[in-house]
Amino acid sequence: MTDVTADPVRLGLLGAGRIGQTHARSIAATEGARLVAVADPVEAAAAAVVRMTGAHAVAAEELLNDPAIEGVLIATPTDLHADLVERAADAGKAIFCEKPLDLDLSRAQQGVAAAARRGVPLMIGFNRRFDPSFRRLREEIDAGRIGGVELVQITSRDPAPPPLAYIQRSGGLFRDMMIHDLDMARFLVGEPIVEVSATGSALVDEAIGDAGDIDTAVAVLRSSSGRLCVISNSRRAVYGYDQRIEVHGSAGMLSAGNPVATTVTRADNSGFATDPLNDFFMERYADAYRLEMAAFCTVVRGGNVPYPNGRDGLAALAIADAASESLATGHTVAVRRVDGTP
Amino acid sequence: MTDVTADPVRLGLLGAGRIGQTHARSIAATEGARLVAVADPVEAAAAAVVRMTGAHAVAAEELLNDPAIEGVLIATPTDLHADLVERAADAGKAIFCEKPLDLDLSRAQQGVAAAARRGVPLMIGFNRRFDPSFRRLREEIDAGRIGGVELVQITSRDPAPPPLAYIQRSGGLFRDMMIHDLDMARFLVGEPIVEVSATGSALVDEAIGDAGDIDTAVAVLRSSSGRLCVISNSRRAVYGYDQRIEVHGSAGMLSAGNPVATTVTRADNSGFATDPLNDFFMERYADAYRLEMAAFCTVVRGGNVPYPNGRDGLAALAIADAASESLATGHTVAVRRVDGTP
Amino acid sequence: MTDVTADPVRLGLLGAGRIGQTHARSIAATEGARLVAVADPVEAAAAAVVRMTGAHAVAAEELLNDPAIEGVLIATPTDLHADLVERAADAGKAIFCEKPLDLDLSRAQQGVAAAARRGVPLMIGFNRRFDPSFRRLREEIDAGRIGGVELVQITSRDPAPPPLAYIQRSGGLFRDMMIHDLDMARFLVGEPIVEVSATGSALVDEAIGDAGDIDTAVAVLRSSSGRLCVISNSRRAVYGYDQRIEVHGSAGMLSAGNPVATTVTRADNSGFATDPLNDFFMERYADAYRLEMAAFCTVVRGGNVPYPNGRDGLAALAIADAASESLATGHTVAVRRVDGTP
Amino acid sequence: MTDVTADPVRLGLLGAGRIGQTHARSIAATEGARLVAVADPVEAAAAAVVRMTGAHAVAAEELLNDPAIEGVLIATPTDLHADLVERAADAGKAIFCEKPLDLDLSRAQQGVAAAARRGVPLMIGFNRRFDPSFRRLREEIDAGRIGGVELVQITSRDPAPPPLAYIQRSGGLFRDMMIHDLDMARFLVGEPIVEVSATGSALVDEAIGDAGDIDTAVAVLRSSSGRLCVISNSRRAVYGYDQRIEVHGSAGMLSAGNPVATTVTRADNSGFATDPLNDFFMERYADAYRLEMAAFCTVVRGGNVPYPNGRDGLAALAIADAASESLATGHTVAVRRVDGTP
Repeated sequence: MTDVTADPVRLGLLGAGRIGQTHARSIAATEGARLVAVADPVEAAAAAVVRMTGAHAVAAEELLNDPAIEGVLIATPTDLHADLVERAADAGKAIFCEKPLDLDLSRAQQGVAAAARRGVPLMIGFNRRFDPSFRRLREEIDAGRIGGVELVQITSRDPAPPPLAYIQRSGGLFRDMMIHDLDMARFLVGEPIVEVSATGSALVDEAIGDAGDIDTAVAVLRSSSGRLCVISNSRRAVYGYDQRIEVHGSAGMLSAGNPVATTVTRADNSGFATDPLNDFFMERYADAYRLEMAAFCTVVRGGNVPYPNGRDGLAALAIADAASESLATGHTVAVRRVDGTP
Repeated sequence: MTDVTADPVRLGLLGAGRIGQTHARSIAATEGARLVAVADPVEAAAAAVVRMTGAHAVAAEELLNDPAIEGVLIATPTDLHADLVERAADAGKAIFCEKPLDLDLSRAQQGVAAAARRGVPLMIGFNRRFDPSFRRLREEIDAGRIGGVELVQITSRDPAPPPLAYIQRSGGLFRDMMIHDLDMARFLVGEPIVEVSATGSALVDEAIGDAGDIDTAVAVLRSSSGRLCVISNSRRAVYGYDQRIEVHGSAGMLSAGNPVATTVTRADNSGFATDPLNDFFMERYADAYRLEMAAFCTVVRGGNVPYPNGRDGLAALAIADAASESLATGHTVAVRRVDGTP
Repeated sequence: MTDVTADPVRLGLLGAGRIGQTHARSIAATEGARLVAVADPVEAAAAAVVRMTGAHAVAAEELLNDPAIEGVLIATPTDLHADLVERAADAGKAIFCEKPLDLDLSRAQQGVAAAARRGVPLMIGFNRRFDPSFRRLREEIDAGRIGGVELVQITSRDPAPPPLAYIQRSGGLFRDMMIHDLDMARFLVGEPIVEVSATGSALVDEAIGDAGDIDTAVAVLRSSSGRLCVISNSRRAVYGYDQRIEVHGSAGMLSAGNPVATTVTRADNSGFATDPLNDFFMERYADAYRLEMAAFCTVVRGGNVPYPNGRDGLAALAIADAASESLATGHTVAVRRVDGTP
Repeated sequence: MTDVTADPVRLGLLGAGRIGQTHARSIAATEGARLVAVADPVEAAAAAVVRMTGAHAVAAEELLNDPAIEGVLIATPTDLHADLVERAADAGKAIFCEKPLDLDLSRAQQGVAAAARRGVPLMIGFNRRFDPSFRRLREEIDAGRIGGVELVQITSRDPAPPPLAYIQRSGGLFRDMMIHDLDMARFLVGEPIVEVSATGSALVDEAIGDAGDIDTAVAVLRSSSGRLCVISNSRRAVYGYDQRIEVHGSAGMLSAGNPVATTVTRADNSGFATDPLNDFFMERYADAYRLEMAAFCTVVRGGNVPYPNGRDGLAALAIADAASESLATGHTVAVRRVDGTP
């Protein structure tokens, strides 16, 4: 928790698109934090953040050089991430970078190395680690409530596929969509993931298949001591955004389901009915986004909180790479070891 | 929805205790609203609101006379409510007053009359009408989803009794605790309540019985066409704040349950377990409090939104009076008709 | 549990209508029990039982005089119950009699007295006490899991009203339908019920009102130490047979809900859906009917099992009488004390 | 449904162990069916069935040659299955054979061929197809309720591992335990399974690993058009027998969960709790076993009901073989095509 009586944490935002605006709103609602500057070449986007927060719209260069800014959030298109991480590290800022650091593991490693060299914290936007239910899974595991973890099952389904143009430069389902689940697997399995076997199909939209990608996928991960994790993904779930996790251990099982907007059930002669799930990930993870920003504020001020860091970003990307290779070859693929990864 | 591009709605807060601070926080989080002044004889309380919102701490008189303030929130002890409503009405402010307007129906009627005379809106703090699930019940009824309403069942249980000193000047369980459920009954039954029979016991704490009050109660309400509503209350629920409603109609049933803080279930050899409920009504109704303030801001600006008004406050109080009489006599008691009540 | 290696318990059935046939089927499925005779003036009814069980169709007189028959089940129309109980008692048979013993409390008392005089066990068909979930409520209460009982809430709704002709000679909703819930209240409250206040309306079918009865009702019971029990009844529940109970105690809460035929949930873009409930009480209580017969077999053989006896029948009837009077007068009514009732 | 007025279906039972006794009990409870003979070299086992059903204890040879017996149930140890199927086919009996037909696919094929040659029906004991909830999944799919099937997720966990001696001659987890899920996958995916990738670990008991088997496993199946099915298995679930299925389609999702013994929930200051699941598959699938026998009786009489036949047994075995190979090689393995398999 940041000290609300102290000066507020001063932050700058690079990239004012959908996710950037989400972070801006979270910062506005965080006591003890202030967004002082925003940079986005799209004027309307920057203006929206200005209206919402009172931040100044500036050029990225200016923002990075402003000594009053303690931490920066990088929420630009992916291909700018690594470069901005390096520049922000050079400027000595604490960094929050949206996932993925880069679609290419080597390039991503350079970014992580830059932050390490400058000794600045680098937090990666794996927001789901801050979801109260998923975080609680980890706490229960750590408290020994289910004994040793043996099998994790992650179901993760989007309401509908993104535009084809997005998919074409997304790096593929494993790097774009499953990356969140791969991080969650690491978060919950509690051991290095050493092997992956993956498969998938284009069942939702043929055009996705024609573009060389898949929209329905399953990956099976194995950890160093033989723990297993199954992840199933689909780009379509007509009943809403569906994100569930089960963790099976030697002494019990934990599950986390989907939050609901209301608790209302309706019964009539055709039976009992409840609403579809949220159909937008920003509503689904509203609490997680807010808690994520609060954690970053603490990180900026040097507070000691757990957070997904650069190496977590690399490790998830390495598993995604292995999954992509497994899909292509039909073989189980060893995960490339990323230096320092737990 | 208030227009965020326009000038913010300027509000003043009278009373900065627990519920006053809750409203202050809600206003701070409402785009298009600003708390400009707060008055509370307890300096520390006022100071907390100042820190949270940037409002100025002033005397009540000054606040009421400030022409820049459009609406006032009355969150003082109950015995000051009616007087402050009258003064705020005289000052031409839109008024939000915590429930109950007064423990005495006649005094409460004077307050309502004052607001009517001055033509200022008077909103009563029946926050539960803004709970997303309970509001949804009403919407489903209005949409004809369950046909005509026949029977409403309201379960309402507090985690633990308040201090005895509070109970002694509370007006008794029906006026203090069940008043919320009586308003909810009116909200959902959709017809005037004409008769009440009520019973109760002091089972939780003997001292409550010694003080002439009860802590466990059931009231049965009958509407003009014979619709029934059962309300059960207890001052104790060790598993947390428990607020549930069922509405049975000719063509179906609606139910609304308790929200949960996480969706986590734990299974082990003793079975399946989930967390207790929230044990504090401010967490339980956090969304409702926020939506209530947003509604008041719209009311201040003359927007057309449904809200519980002065006559709703009187009508609930009249039912509480009848319930108290029924408890004392063992007879079904006719509810005193409050002028203009639906 | 009856000893299956011993001779089977030999039973006779008086009345082979719907409920009689249910019992016949249960006996056929009970190891260690045999239905040897059935008597019903309606030949087709008796024949159905003969086919199902191999029992002989005989006259009631012959059945009652058959020394080989150890226990008789009385499942005739209600107005014959008391007379047959007396004759079976005179014949020295163990007796199972469907509820109610008689619509008139004095006449019912004569039947109970006859059984007591002859020293034969008299079990009353309050089948719900054998429902595994409801029985479990009692076991948990007895085990002290929720501390002292404070408030019991019983919701009991039939899918649709019976024919008007049935209602006209039923004794009214309290004696015909709520009688089961009144017994359940006694079963769970654990203290004598001393006072009742009841209300009701004819909302489902005007003709029921014209016949002087109600179809929607609420009764509030108070026990000797002030424990409360609320029962709500309706003759209509379009979503199926709805029978739920909550027991609130000083240290916790127990609830029992409706069983489901399958665990299947269907989700689509309109949300999540499950099936309606069973719409027939014989399916709903299939297990209870079976366990009830098994208990009776043990009773016949002198085994020591808890079962609802004649005094339980009288006590429930006395509460129904009080509820009827409360409905008529609008007053809380003291329950007539039935000799020996707990 | 068999015609109960006709002569009962006369059945013989080969093997009177645990599962044989279960079938005997089901037959006893099936109107229109009679178990007339039982053969088991263990006298006590046969005697138990005799007591339960009145069947005669005979030698297997005699049972197979008895012209009065229309259908035989083979519930012996697995290594006798294929031989008995051939002998029963030669004797012209309708055959119900427990799964698996044989651990060796070629040997199993000989059994299937023998039945085909003689034109006798051969039903395989995949009891889960008769579970009311799982059967309902299939009906909903067939009714088009969720559009085209895209992804099936099967979770299947036993309470505790069987004795090591059993595991050593079981053919391994895929052929012994997952075989049920592989059949269920075929039942629900609705297309031939063409490829499998599988992995597993010995996490529950090291001795299982030392015996060359696994106790925790995941298999991913792919059908001819690219539909996916994930199966996760564990030999341990401390909270009881856990069998759940989700079917995701283009237009929705179906799920089936675990039945519960009671609907009772207990709430106290530590939260809400329900019972563990059944811990024995015979309770879990009691309804399924009963419906399975009823289906077999119809099959014996030539009635037209869907049932898992010999080729279903072969197809599941072929997938288990492929899964075993995948586990050993780390490669995705093509499933051997079994003649005539859908």
